[in-house]
Amino acid sequence: MSLEKLLEQNKGRYEHELKEFLSIPSVSARSEHKDDVARCAEWVKAKLSDLGMKAEVVPTKGHPVVYGELMDADASAPTVLVYGHYDVQPVEPLDEWKSPPFEGTVRDGRLYARGTADDKGQVHVHMKALEAYREAKGSPPVNLKFLFEGEEEVGSVNLEPFIRENTDRLACDVAVVSDTPMLAEDLPSICVGLRGMVYMEVRLRGPGQDLHSGQYGGGVVNPANALAEMIAQLKDEQGRVTVPGFYDAVKEPSPAEKKAYAEIPMTEEDFRQEAGVPAIGDGEVGVHFIERIWARPTLDVNGMLSGYTGEGAKTIIPATSMAKISMRLVPDQDPNAIREAFESHVRSLKPEGVELQIDFHAGARAWAVDPAGPVFQAATQAIEPVFGRGPLFIREGGSIPIVPMIEQILETPLLLLGFALPGCNLHSPNEWMSLDLYHKGIDIVTRLYDELASQLGN
Amino acid sequence: MSLEKLLEQNKGRYEHELKEFLSIPSVSARSEHKDDVARCAEWVKAKLSDLGMKAEVVPTKGHPVVYGELMDADASAPTVLVYGHYDVQPVEPLDEWKSPPFEGTVRDGRLYARGTADDKGQVHVHMKALEAYREAKGSPPVNLKFLFEGEEEVGSVNLEPFIRENTDRLACDVAVVSDTPMLAEDLPSICVGLRGMVYMEVRLRGPGQDLHSGQYGGGVVNPANALAEMIAQLKDEQGRVTVPGFYDAVKEPSPAEKKAYAEIPMTEEDFRQEAGVPAIGDGEVGVHFIERIWARPTLDVNGMLSGYTGEGAKTIIPATSMAKISMRLVPDQDPNAIREAFESHVRSLKPEGVELQIDFHAGARAWAVDPAGPVFQAATQAIEPVFGRGPLFIREGGSIPIVPMIEQILETPLLLLGFALPGCNLHSPNEWMSLDLYHKGIDIVTRLYDELASQLGN
Repeated sequence: MSLEKLLEQNKGRYEHELKEFLSIPSVSARSEHKDDVARCAEWVKAKLSDLGMKAEVVPTKGHPVVYGELMDADASAPTVLVYGHYDVQPVEPLDEWKSPPFEGTVRDGRLYARGTADDKGQVHVHMKALEAYREAKGSPPVNLKFLFEGEEEVGSVNLEPFIRENTDRLACDVAVVSDTPMLAEDLPSICVGLRGMVYMEVRLRGPGQDLHSGQYGGGVVNPANALAEMIAQLKDEQGRVTVPGFYDAVKEPSPAEKKAYAEIPMTEEDFRQEAGVPAIGDGEVGVHFIERIWARPTLDVNGMLSGYTGEGAKTIIPATSMAKISMRLVPDQDPNAIREAFESHVRSLKPEGVELQIDFHAGARAWAVDPAGPVFQAATQAIEPVFGRGPLFIREGGSIPIVPMIEQILETPLLLLGFALPGCNLHSPNEWMSLDLYHKGIDIVTRLYDELASQLGN
Repeated sequence: MSLEKLLEQNKGRYEHELKEFLSIPSVSARSEHKDDVARCAEWVKAKLSDLGMKAEVVPTKGHPVVYGELMDADASAPTVLVYGHYDVQPVEPLDEWKSPPFEGTVRDGRLYARGTADDKGQVHVHMKALEAYREAKGSPPVNLKFLFEGEEEVGSVNLEPFIRENTDRLACDVAVVSDTPMLAEDLPSICVGLRGMVYMEVRLRGPGQDLHSGQYGGGVVNPANALAEMIAQLKDEQGRVTVPGFYDAVKEPSPAEKKAYAEIPMTEEDFRQEAGVPAIGDGEVGVHFIERIWARPTLDVNGMLSGYTGEGAKTIIPATSMAKISMRLVPDQDPNAIREAFESHVRSLKPEGVELQIDFHAGARAWAVDPAGPVFQAATQAIEPVFGRGPLFIREGGSIPIVPMIEQILETPLLLLGFALPGCNLHSPNEWMSLDLYHKGIDIVTRLYDELASQLGN
């Protein structure tokens, strides 16, 4: 049977099996789901074994990694490492789900359940692509290594040591990461850039306890006013971050990429509506909004608290204030350098009369790649016949710390080939995946084997 | 028996009776204490009747007013209205009290219980002064009207209508308000100025819900950053409030009063320690700190909230932000004018991309009096023999809305003769009153009758 016909005939069975995968509540953040995460790892391992892979569940200090290999291709064939994760986000608030979060439910061509888009659906695309290829055409022309972790939603803390300890075993010619969205249902796209991050917390302490604002107002520095004034000074009137040296390492997107931004079929008004804001704004003055969210660094307050925030009036000078402040980074900003520059800048802004504490929560490098060369050539050729057009090369404003980490440790090119869609309720109630894209994804991955073999084979 | 000897002999009995007063948990803010507040009103009324007053408990929409009159002085005698309140603050957190809040306990010459300083102890001073005067010397040479409310701690909401409906009945030549502290145990002082207040709440709304700071950062206005920037613009680098017209009506203290500030026996270091801050600051540059807290207007953030404020990192652009902002006012700033100016200034600072809501919580006029004339002459002469020195004339940075209200409606001069002390844990656990000042207060009030009769009598 042709691969095409086989994919068509098996659609129902694939979806049925995906629902089984989704029914395991592998919520990595919740200790009460520890056994479910373990059970899910065993489920994945069993499926990889069924695909003829040498598969195992590898324990870590946290949730296990599932790793499978199929090294049947000949010596000249390239090796493809596929990354995904089988753990999912918590499902709360439960009462906002229109159908049960761990029961795949189809409505209007979308499969709803926790993990459909992030990332079980995309992991399953790779499983079914391998299954279909083997059934229709035999062993694929590339060696395959599947690396599916169980801690992506809790920061992938044990993945880096695992990769560092297994660099030989994981060695590959390209790593395919399927954990990103495309731009739109009819716009195949490949992510070629991610922002990094530095996430800080700033705390001010003034008086030992809240003071009466009548008795002390005008006499002591108010930590809430002081924090607001410090935050205000972190950006200038042009929307640029004032941390000294902040932009020094920023690598501009190529003129070709910048030109491409203007051709992305998303208007400012589309973006405004999607964001649900009264007007677009913020970011640097005079920079295209797509460049601002994809390729320019930012500084955002993520949370802010001081004093009395309940009903009515309480006349105090708060004892303390705090803000969580994160900066999205772009290539080639160094998170450590930015963190240090931020800290010393914030210290320089502190007025007398308050004490300052700065804490660091998280850092991640940005990542970007020039979409030229054989990997992107192969991906384009795998996509074109399925969509009737080649992919757009896009960036993501968010951060996927494992991407630069895999690139750096394994010294491999990366291909971010994702099949989710914007608005698919990642991390929110009613997460969904387009079943059309799920099946197109399987089709594309089977084609990718051939194209990568042809582009990368010796 | 001389009044002096009588006061000395009765100390124990007075304190015993005060403890009885303190044992009634007249917490006006708590509905479960409604009956206790009513019981306390009856207790006060019975005591006033015992003093020969025509006394009654007057119901209001909230807790009752207790009113008593003793109009035995001759036609040429002045009439003195005494204001105080018999309700008290809640006592939580209970476990921080070293002795039960509704059981007067003496330690180191201080009587500890809720309401000792604020304001039952001071109300009782007036009761016992009248009792002692009558016992030792007969009917006092002034007509007396005692007005004790039961809602001071919940904003005196029903007092203004009561006064407006009873202007004839309450007519007086001077109103004595005993609800303030002196400067120190050995520094008799009379409060001649109070700040007013305008208390506002500012809310910004950006996106319809919290957004992913990676996907949207740089593209939408962040309501937390925007609020911080707006707050920062409310003051200039000299610490002056930037609301247009804010200082237009500000009446400078007289040169004599300013000179007196420098002679107040409190250093910046005393104040710093009392406030528990690392350094003194804030307020207008170049203005003496006592003038700043007593006689200059302020703008303080009392509370501020936006986004994620729990443990760790959450990468969001908050949907909303809010700040509670209050301004302390001085004579002759008009709370309504300041409120309007604040609102239109804040509107002018709002960036595009967020929606603004401004709410008004509370307003009060400032009050100040020139401590010259017969009332202050009488008070000085009543105080001198008891303390061996005359009073300092001080201001309070806080607001007592009933003071300008009584002055305005009854068109009477006011005398703020208080016997509490700084640090007496008003509104906090372990509230106390100096027993020495309590007894000195009784002595002073008996003398005040004679001095006011002599100064104000026709």
